[in-house]
Amino acid sequence: MESKTGDFMSQIGVAIIGGTGMGAGELLRLLLSHENAEVVSVASRSSAGKPLVSAHPHLNGLYDLNFDEAVNWCLLADYSQRVIFSTLPHKVSSKVIAELHPKCVSENVKLIDFSGDFRIQNPDLHRKYYPEVDPEIALRRQFVFGLPEINRTKLREASFTANPGCLASAAILSLLPLVPHEIKQTIAVNAVTGSSGAGRELRATTHHPIRRSNMFAYSAMSHRHQGEILESLETCAGSKPEISFVTHSTPLSRGIYVTSYATLEKSVSKNAVCDWYQEFYKGHPFIRLVERAEVANVVGSNFCDISIYAEGSKVVACAALDNLIKGMSGQAIQNMNLMFGLTEEAGLRAGGLRAV
Amino acid sequence: MESKTGDFMSQIGVAIIGGTGMGAGELLRLLLSHENAEVVSVASRSSAGKPLVSAHPHLNGLYDLNFDEAVNWCLLADYSQRVIFSTLPHKVSSKVIAELHPKCVSENVKLIDFSGDFRIQNPDLHRKYYPEVDPEIALRRQFVFGLPEINRTKLREASFTANPGCLASAAILSLLPLVPHEIKQTIAVNAVTGSSGAGRELRATTHHPIRRSNMFAYSAMSHRHQGEILESLETCAGSKPEISFVTHSTPLSRGIYVTSYATLEKSVSKNAVCDWYQEFYKGHPFIRLVERAEVANVVGSNFCDISIYAEGSKVVACAALDNLIKGMSGQAIQNMNLMFGLTEEAGLRAGGLRAV
Amino acid sequence: MESKTGDFMSQIGVAIIGGTGMGAGELLRLLLSHENAEVVSVASRSSAGKPLVSAHPHLNGLYDLNFDEAVNWCLLADYSQRVIFSTLPHKVSSKVIAELHPKCVSENVKLIDFSGDFRIQNPDLHRKYYPEVDPEIALRRQFVFGLPEINRTKLREASFTANPGCLASAAILSLLPLVPHEIKQTIAVNAVTGSSGAGRELRATTHHPIRRSNMFAYSAMSHRHQGEILESLETCAGSKPEISFVTHSTPLSRGIYVTSYATLEKSVSKNAVCDWYQEFYKGHPFIRLVERAEVANVVGSNFCDISIYAEGSKVVACAALDNLIKGMSGQAIQNMNLMFGLTEEAGLRAGGLRAV
Amino acid sequence: MESKTGDFMSQIGVAIIGGTGMGAGELLRLLLSHENAEVVSVASRSSAGKPLVSAHPHLNGLYDLNFDEAVNWCLLADYSQRVIFSTLPHKVSSKVIAELHPKCVSENVKLIDFSGDFRIQNPDLHRKYYPEVDPEIALRRQFVFGLPEINRTKLREASFTANPGCLASAAILSLLPLVPHEIKQTIAVNAVTGSSGAGRELRATTHHPIRRSNMFAYSAMSHRHQGEILESLETCAGSKPEISFVTHSTPLSRGIYVTSYATLEKSVSKNAVCDWYQEFYKGHPFIRLVERAEVANVVGSNFCDISIYAEGSKVVACAALDNLIKGMSGQAIQNMNLMFGLTEEAGLRAGGLRAV
Repeated sequence: MESKTGDFMSQIGVAIIGGTGMGAGELLRLLLSHENAEVVSVASRSSAGKPLVSAHPHLNGLYDLNFDEAVNWCLLADYSQRVIFSTLPHKVSSKVIAELHPKCVSENVKLIDFSGDFRIQNPDLHRKYYPEVDPEIALRRQFVFGLPEINRTKLREASFTANPGCLASAAILSLLPLVPHEIKQTIAVNAVTGSSGAGRELRATTHHPIRRSNMFAYSAMSHRHQGEILESLETCAGSKPEISFVTHSTPLSRGIYVTSYATLEKSVSKNAVCDWYQEFYKGHPFIRLVERAEVANVVGSNFCDISIYAEGSKVVACAALDNLIKGMSGQAIQNMNLMFGLTEEAGLRAGGLRAV
Repeated sequence: MESKTGDFMSQIGVAIIGGTGMGAGELLRLLLSHENAEVVSVASRSSAGKPLVSAHPHLNGLYDLNFDEAVNWCLLADYSQRVIFSTLPHKVSSKVIAELHPKCVSENVKLIDFSGDFRIQNPDLHRKYYPEVDPEIALRRQFVFGLPEINRTKLREASFTANPGCLASAAILSLLPLVPHEIKQTIAVNAVTGSSGAGRELRATTHHPIRRSNMFAYSAMSHRHQGEILESLETCAGSKPEISFVTHSTPLSRGIYVTSYATLEKSVSKNAVCDWYQEFYKGHPFIRLVERAEVANVVGSNFCDISIYAEGSKVVACAALDNLIKGMSGQAIQNMNLMFGLTEEAGLRAGGLRAV
Repeated sequence: MESKTGDFMSQIGVAIIGGTGMGAGELLRLLLSHENAEVVSVASRSSAGKPLVSAHPHLNGLYDLNFDEAVNWCLLADYSQRVIFSTLPHKVSSKVIAELHPKCVSENVKLIDFSGDFRIQNPDLHRKYYPEVDPEIALRRQFVFGLPEINRTKLREASFTANPGCLASAAILSLLPLVPHEIKQTIAVNAVTGSSGAGRELRATTHHPIRRSNMFAYSAMSHRHQGEILESLETCAGSKPEISFVTHSTPLSRGIYVTSYATLEKSVSKNAVCDWYQEFYKGHPFIRLVERAEVANVVGSNFCDISIYAEGSKVVACAALDNLIKGMSGQAIQNMNLMFGLTEEAGLRAGGLRAV
Repeated sequence: MESKTGDFMSQIGVAIIGGTGMGAGELLRLLLSHENAEVVSVASRSSAGKPLVSAHPHLNGLYDLNFDEAVNWCLLADYSQRVIFSTLPHKVSSKVIAELHPKCVSENVKLIDFSGDFRIQNPDLHRKYYPEVDPEIALRRQFVFGLPEINRTKLREASFTANPGCLASAAILSLLPLVPHEIKQTIAVNAVTGSSGAGRELRATTHHPIRRSNMFAYSAMSHRHQGEILESLETCAGSKPEISFVTHSTPLSRGIYVTSYATLEKSVSKNAVCDWYQEFYKGHPFIRLVERAEVANVVGSNFCDISIYAEGSKVVACAALDNLIKGMSGQAIQNMNLMFGLTEEAGLRAGGLRAV
């Protein structure tokens, strides 16, 4: 692939670490339609030297790259603007990033991390949900939590961004406009996810003969994403909300559906709640408030669709998104856009596929 | 098909109304392995005269019957024990049953109704959820709510049984042992269902090209099944519980998964809650308490698998069942077994399919 | 939606007829990423006046149009280049087009038809497969069959294009490079398709509860697409090939997989056959010759992946494509690009989704 | 589980080797409804000592057994009739069976093998498709190929049965009545299978996120099952047929669909071909000749549904079956029934599930 424009000055040079995984594959796919970004180096220790297409056969003919052993800094250096996406799993990512960090700073290369290692600032929450990860607190503090609907302003200044978890994104977005209001009791947050959230690694729970017609809860009230959900909601609510968070597997590949159940101190009309959401998400291009949020309408897009129901003091908010896009690689590009002063939607204007 | 035994005296003669639907199809399929029941008449106004196999091609070679215009009482009369299953939709079923009732009483024919028309006894609840249905209250009072885990004793004496709703069955079973304990607040009941619950009728929401990768909430806090859930839980709890009930469609065909979120007045251990469930369901052959309830393990069977999670005062109970079996036709046979003094498991000993 | 560039002169103004269907929806989705085309009018008699989003909720926020009763020629007139896509079903489309044709000619508006009405030139073949359709032969002669891999040169001059059938596209592409070689006997062409090929209309065969785990043959040796397959192969082979064509439904939504079985007069190596295909498809950007054609690699893209197997004189060619894209709306855009002198790939550079 | 009847004399004692796999699981599930067979020992080296339910959670509450290290001969000895099912993979199974064989003979224990090791009698064919397997030819000769529609009479006398492959069963059954007629050329046999055919082992091709929307050919013209297909067809046709056999994966879990394309020397009517099939399969209880064979109608049952199409001299035969039942464990039970003089349908009277 040649430079899209031949003009290295106006383009963002992109390097990706962890290049064989699903997150990397989706990033590569999405960046094809980004006019201001060019992938120059895709690193994978296990596949170094092999063609990128060996891991991503759907991108055949679209990328003419081989996997690098590590980020190719020389190629990156051609670009005046540069970003590294680390799509490594947690624990691994923080180690690699700790090594890269000084060079990123000195070379003025921004970094977006897909792992959970840098998402939580509160030390107690971090320790509870990532006991085995310990990036220096000083390093963690340099990361902005990459949910643009909360941190858009900060992201415009950020050099290091911690991309949120897919389930966390949906859960937080379903509740953000609600939590500043007086909530009476524990919020039940029911999350359902497709299998692509589990990534490339083969597992018994993603074995097709059984997963095809299965549904089950996992990590009930113990899922790691609770940490970032709690921190985000607290920041927004100004108080500590209580949640009961259960995640489920369903036989989708892409797609997350979160249904959040809250009871307010007072009765409220559906219209009033909708107004809160309209107000909160005004100007956020990827949140659509709709009559009925459906996974099919967001699959393949960076949208998060939200619908609201209310009866008496009971409020239910549903959020649907594509876990590989708004829940991961699309959101990372949205963050990149903000970090480099581009339009937030750049490269992300695709609609959902609906029939798929 | 000849009589399984040639002995009309020991067999239950079965007639089915609404014979082309999915409930009837599943009943026919399940009754094939019931040693004490024989289907003698399957009525369908729209398909009268056509072979049963025209609507149920999977039963080709297993039934040699044509659809009757109405129940063939003459054939039924050959049997000393007799039952009619009405699988008609609500509103329609109560009208037909009102007409059949006197003859059922005089001929000593029992009846099991699949519709919602006779499930709720409380007049206010009934009016709220079935405003347009008005079977005489006196007639409704003759029906026992057919959830054996609540009404086993009554069902042994029953002549008329109102078979529960599929979502209601799962929701009630997930909560029955919990509600007698002190629950602090609204219980969130999150239900997810496959498409076969919608039956034979074609709808936009069950159009395969879109449903295949879709998930969405419907009837949020307004689903009819709430009526029977509330009545059942109240009977068992001795007080009126508050629930927030949202149903969802997912791309399964068979299978319901309910996740119920309760907060108790006091902290409780998972073991303690499991003990409540063990105790409550002791001797109920179709309830399995398991580490992880999964739809794949119950599809094709009459089991309802339940798993429990607890943290502090928060309790989550998950229930999985096959909506066409334990949620409908299997449960109807379980009820028939009780009503005729047979072993509760007769004809229902199949295991789940897991890989399907 | 404003003009993408504000410059009406450089843009193609697009109108769509039959706007509520799946073909129209996919066209609208794909055109979002086409820099040189702008949708100005979407006609639907049944939905005139309603927002476009009422039929295509996945495009919420991306189009701010209402359905027109008929093509809005005034808006089209603003553009120096104009095209109408008719996505109406066969029989209906030819009637509407017969009426539009004079105005298209006088106003210099090009037209691309999705129906089968104008695809076949041979009168006998046409009569055999579309007995009830009779667009004047003179009108039919003005249409070019829109498979760029055969007719690229003609399409560059075309004003009226008959977009090929989805199954036909896959079948023809699997066989084109092979048929000029000496084939001994009937070619078996086994086609398998997802449910979105059936479109928006509800049918028993696309009812999710049953289709979800079903597979079956339909229109065995009688499918309409045989006409255009035979005509295309004959044109290319220079002789009449014999085929045995059976189509099947499988529980995909998007995706067609064709496996063609030929026996040659002589033994041949896999390499030799691959060379024929490489040679034939050189310079055709949407044909990828791969080790293993897979539906997952083409879903969401305009690619047709082809793989070859050979043993002795037996050759098998497999072709995979997305029926809504390379099998329909993507191919229509590819045709539009050729008809207007644009790069063939314009707006069609997306990769497959793989995990979906 | 106690003895079903308490009467060891009238029951068949069953042992299973390879007990954690899908074939074993399905055997266990099906045997629950067999009145004359009782599972006494399930062997698995890897899981010895663990409860059977650890590998087969869907059978929870239905079997109260732990896995044995090896067949428990003592328990078997209680029964006057005894059978061992080996569900081990090929190569492994022949080794284990070579060791068991003398004891089986001396103790009069019958054996049914699920692997490919003993299916092919012709030494050249065997060597071609199983080059690495070499059970003594003398031992192989003691096995009857367990397709009851060919070998019913021999199976009634058999002590050792080689259960056919799933794809082979469907392919052979689609063609058996046709091959005695004059076939002009290579028969194309197109087979499509669900993922459960791959068994319990995790593979990239059965990873749910990708398999869910995928379809692809594999082992084109090189699949092992070709050996037994060729041998069976030759036996029946009296001459060597030529086939071109390609297998495909589709996102079903259960289900095989085979479409066979033949060209006869002369033209033939559909009715005539149907008569050949009717005649051939008369009295075979698990073959249903139907207007349209569909996977949904056979899933969960031991039926193989066949439909026929003809045009001129071209004939197409479609066969649908459940690969885990008529393609494996159900057929094994059918064989057991024949080997022990029981009704062929014993324990196998279930209908298909259709909606699943």
